[in-house]
Amino acid sequence: MTARPLACIILAAGKGTRMKSALPKVLHPLGGRPMVAHVMAAAQSLSPERMVIVVGPGMDDVAAAVAPHPTVVQERQQGTGDAVMAAMGELAGFTGDVLVLYGDSPLITPATLSAMVAARRGPADPAVVVLGMRPADPGAYGRLILGAGGGLERIVEFLDATADERAVTLCNAGFMAFDGARMAGLLAGIGNDNAKGEYYLTDAVAVARARGHACAVVEGPVEDTAGVNSRAELAGIEKIFQARLRRAAMDNGATLLDPDTVYFAADTVLGRDVTIGQHVVFGPGVTVADGVEIKPFSHLEGVVVRKGAIIGPYARLRPGSDVGEGAHVGNFVELKNTNLGPGAKANHLTYLGDSDVGGGSNIGAGTITCNYDGVLKHRTRIGDGAFIGTHSTLVAPVSIGDGAFTAAGSVITREVPAGALAISRAPQQEKPGWAPRFRAAKLALKAKLARKE
Amino acid sequence: MTARPLACIILAAGKGTRMKSALPKVLHPLGGRPMVAHVMAAAQSLSPERMVIVVGPGMDDVAAAVAPHPTVVQERQQGTGDAVMAAMGELAGFTGDVLVLYGDSPLITPATLSAMVAARRGPADPAVVVLGMRPADPGAYGRLILGAGGGLERIVEFLDATADERAVTLCNAGFMAFDGARMAGLLAGIGNDNAKGEYYLTDAVAVARARGHACAVVEGPVEDTAGVNSRAELAGIEKIFQARLRRAAMDNGATLLDPDTVYFAADTVLGRDVTIGQHVVFGPGVTVADGVEIKPFSHLEGVVVRKGAIIGPYARLRPGSDVGEGAHVGNFVELKNTNLGPGAKANHLTYLGDSDVGGGSNIGAGTITCNYDGVLKHRTRIGDGAFIGTHSTLVAPVSIGDGAFTAAGSVITREVPAGALAISRAPQQEKPGWAPRFRAAKLALKAKLARKE
Amino acid sequence: MTARPLACIILAAGKGTRMKSALPKVLHPLGGRPMVAHVMAAAQSLSPERMVIVVGPGMDDVAAAVAPHPTVVQERQQGTGDAVMAAMGELAGFTGDVLVLYGDSPLITPATLSAMVAARRGPADPAVVVLGMRPADPGAYGRLILGAGGGLERIVEFLDATADERAVTLCNAGFMAFDGARMAGLLAGIGNDNAKGEYYLTDAVAVARARGHACAVVEGPVEDTAGVNSRAELAGIEKIFQARLRRAAMDNGATLLDPDTVYFAADTVLGRDVTIGQHVVFGPGVTVADGVEIKPFSHLEGVVVRKGAIIGPYARLRPGSDVGEGAHVGNFVELKNTNLGPGAKANHLTYLGDSDVGGGSNIGAGTITCNYDGVLKHRTRIGDGAFIGTHSTLVAPVSIGDGAFTAAGSVITREVPAGALAISRAPQQEKPGWAPRFRAAKLALKAKLARKE
Repeated sequence: MTARPLACIILAAGKGTRMKSALPKVLHPLGGRPMVAHVMAAAQSLSPERMVIVVGPGMDDVAAAVAPHPTVVQERQQGTGDAVMAAMGELAGFTGDVLVLYGDSPLITPATLSAMVAARRGPADPAVVVLGMRPADPGAYGRLILGAGGGLERIVEFLDATADERAVTLCNAGFMAFDGARMAGLLAGIGNDNAKGEYYLTDAVAVARARGHACAVVEGPVEDTAGVNSRAELAGIEKIFQARLRRAAMDNGATLLDPDTVYFAADTVLGRDVTIGQHVVFGPGVTVADGVEIKPFSHLEGVVVRKGAIIGPYARLRPGSDVGEGAHVGNFVELKNTNLGPGAKANHLTYLGDSDVGGGSNIGAGTITCNYDGVLKHRTRIGDGAFIGTHSTLVAPVSIGDGAFTAAGSVITREVPAGALAISRAPQQEKPGWAPRFRAAKLALKAKLARKE
Repeated sequence: MTARPLACIILAAGKGTRMKSALPKVLHPLGGRPMVAHVMAAAQSLSPERMVIVVGPGMDDVAAAVAPHPTVVQERQQGTGDAVMAAMGELAGFTGDVLVLYGDSPLITPATLSAMVAARRGPADPAVVVLGMRPADPGAYGRLILGAGGGLERIVEFLDATADERAVTLCNAGFMAFDGARMAGLLAGIGNDNAKGEYYLTDAVAVARARGHACAVVEGPVEDTAGVNSRAELAGIEKIFQARLRRAAMDNGATLLDPDTVYFAADTVLGRDVTIGQHVVFGPGVTVADGVEIKPFSHLEGVVVRKGAIIGPYARLRPGSDVGEGAHVGNFVELKNTNLGPGAKANHLTYLGDSDVGGGSNIGAGTITCNYDGVLKHRTRIGDGAFIGTHSTLVAPVSIGDGAFTAAGSVITREVPAGALAISRAPQQEKPGWAPRFRAAKLALKAKLARKE
Repeated sequence: MTARPLACIILAAGKGTRMKSALPKVLHPLGGRPMVAHVMAAAQSLSPERMVIVVGPGMDDVAAAVAPHPTVVQERQQGTGDAVMAAMGELAGFTGDVLVLYGDSPLITPATLSAMVAARRGPADPAVVVLGMRPADPGAYGRLILGAGGGLERIVEFLDATADERAVTLCNAGFMAFDGARMAGLLAGIGNDNAKGEYYLTDAVAVARARGHACAVVEGPVEDTAGVNSRAELAGIEKIFQARLRRAAMDNGATLLDPDTVYFAADTVLGRDVTIGQHVVFGPGVTVADGVEIKPFSHLEGVVVRKGAIIGPYARLRPGSDVGEGAHVGNFVELKNTNLGPGAKANHLTYLGDSDVGGGSNIGAGTITCNYDGVLKHRTRIGDGAFIGTHSTLVAPVSIGDGAFTAAGSVITREVPAGALAISRAPQQEKPGWAPRFRAAKLALKAKLARKE
């Protein structure tokens, strides 16, 4: 591809009424990332010089999500042509090529976009390139009518199409590439003399042809162009997206014991010979190194899991955590903002928050860090080779030295020196014969209560 | 529809041998509710004057499940005609219309039943209305043969059908509506002169036509009429039912991140902009208000979750609980018969049973209420803005005042006044150098044991 | 079948490069058991006199997995014919029939293998029997060309096939049965004069026919013959396998509330009227008796669950455990190497490791056994009818007598006699007015820290 500059306009002003949501449509997530971010990532892969997002009035959260890219507000919903015109102010002085994408069509791929730009720059020098697709059921899609030379002659809306035109299977997918130098002129030629009184970007083709400019079609996979208008459609697209991620994970050497029950984020990174059990959920920001085993019912988010570590079942790894090489995180264990050293183990019913645990340490079942005092959060530091006894309560800020022990059931509120045993425990006492008396008294009470009722 | 009264007979006497179950077939659940209850709910939507359920001998649990509606026992399994005859005693003096439904066909809809009743009351005044369907493979179903005027002429069993009749795609779905005034006479005309010696309700059509009464067909969606004879068929019906519930949830404005992994009960109520993560199970009796987020691996049953609350992951909400507006219930937390006030948080490894927690209180990780003393259950009351320390044990009956603290690791057995700190903790002691001596001793013991083996 | 002896050769030398794994392909698991073990189990069902597995160089882990069956090493990857020749040394003196199976085709069934052996022993006395299949898309499979009498004339590779031969839908599935007496001679006749310079076992048919021996075809279900070359293919085979296990479970009288979310091991045994909730995972070695209910999100491995027990949700049962009749294991509870007596209950947030719990005992929420002292593991013994209080810490080795109580929050380090109450607890103290002062101080500190930033 030449060094000719590229700009991308992403249309994201649609209200998405059918989503029935207070959240703007393009911010609904796919693989843990807003739809519009997928579109931006695909566009970004072409290294555009500029990217501008067209939003509706009051969509400040969309503007925040796409920053630092600029947004322009389409004040009135007057069609795609109007939306693109709104963006042109941000492209003042720009003379390269311009891609128009849709914030609610998140499966578009870099390959398809590249093909469109390449066609725009091809020998025919088309003013407009339209993305075509061949859906299983062309239904009411606009048909792309080609000329004898293979160029795009016109786009016919289904309602206006003749029977011959309706038999055409190549349909308009909406994505378009323009020659920036001719674009403003074409947009100016688009009228709104139609039933809805809107400006349709599609009409740029008719304007271009009327002026004698060539137009072209690039055909892409129909799956990639799907747009989202309802939550059910979003779920359908998520299904395609997850299937791609699962397939890629397996092709790269991960074992998925039951792929349909594993949910990846768009950015999940997996090493080789990683085994992922049934019912595992990845939130954003997870990197898993080679040879890691993730057992069923685990939930990971914003965490690095290093080589050979064993996670789960029922492990919850929260953002800011780092699980060291060969470390174990077992059932009903939560890690938050915690570094677990190499070979360290936290295997049962434990909460480690805002903690640093040294290599080879053993965190007993039922260990809990008190990282929050109701106002502030504090860190817990545990050295190498320490042994934290069952049901230990570690009141942060506190540190426990290398090789130190805490006795089962202890509340640790001050530093434990290396190699020491810390203990806070009342001595065990027995009351012989207490149990039958207690039970008898309780049963008598129960009988009395029953009589009263 | 006129004010003419309606009665419903639900056939539920089948043994369901292929279910291989001690539980009567119609009590097997679909979406957390017995199959027969789905049929009753569909019937109830037409506000019938009477509803009677036909059960087999010894099916007292079915009778209990359908109460207060009366049941009649079909003593011998002599066919559907015999079953309906058994029910007629409960319809003495009734002269409206009578619908016959099947307790093992739980997907029948109010719309289809309404259409049948409307047809019964139509100008042709048919004595019998039969529900027809067009399965993808008509196979061995009985065929519905229509007359020139569109009325039902006869039902031909597949084995008795000619090639022309077998080519008919309209099949008998079993559901029927009768004119109550003529019904008893028609039933009396049904014989059992067939291979099995049974009385087939289907034969009422032939009896009616022989007497010159009109009969009619209403066509319904084939999916709605499916019956259950095995657990695999029940699973197939559950799949259809869940797909409907998921679709309805999304259409009403809930986000389902991975719909195929979410299981709804028939009565789940969801607000708008509710987000439901992967692998979430709803038992009966759950209401979720607007803006609630339910994270993965959560299990809810018999609970109200109020506006903006955040649930899970790995939260288990049990019956009798109420999670207040903006409250948080986090991982490995169980609530049973517990009211959590607005903005209260119970985020980690906690069991709150038979409790009332005030607004804005923070329940520390590892907090457990001892609600059961081995004989009786007692309540725990926590005021507003309290801070329950990590690993607190609250021995009910006990109350903790507004704004009070409990120190980490404390066992609270008596009332804590508002604003007080309650603590029960042995002081921390250290034994310097203890750990290496302990390890050395244990390793020596291990070596000794190994030598003995 | 006659008493004529049978030998089985299982080819397992393939590197499985496309698996991208350090683990040999045939050790990748299906239903919790290595692929090759499935093939061995199918072979074993025919009670072969000998079984020999052909492995590649360095595949010691495969040899270990198939022991005590002998392995031979195929030194160079020179085709299936070469692999079988490598195995012949182990069959010295053997004159019965020989089945050749594939370690990466784990869905092969005893029925299909039996049919092959029966055909080998049929009146035509074929030297070679080839398993045929009819895939939906025959694609590039070798075609099986039959003679007028129904015998196998030859196998034509797709590339060498004429249009007529390509129209044949009966394809070569690879599995073969040989007359052991003629087998060595046939193998010796196979050449490697082909593009890859390999010896193809398939060519044994041509050699046999050239020598005037009959050959035969047995047709089997295409699904059974699928081989695995990638993790995605393995996932596809797992999907088929799980569907079979789920269907069998339902046919035998288990209720699966959402079958697609239940994962069985190959050896899972279920009783009648077992109910399995959503999202349940079975590892190897689980037996579940009649009437057991397994609630959602449970994970079982190496455990016996006796009649009427209730498990989960979120219960993890680990190997060596035995859950008694009518016992309950509830949410966030882990059992490892633990016997839970009849009617005993461990319902919340508990870890029982290396324990014996008597019948009818109640294990309070948050009970944890300290079974590991950092070096050795020890057992905990709890008698019948005991009541272990909330947040009890049981430091093993320790025993608690029949009917004894432990007080909530106690650390139990020495024996508790029957009927006694054991308690280790510091008395509760209150500090009135402490909480507001504490909060004020913390808030002041927070403000100070904020100013510094």
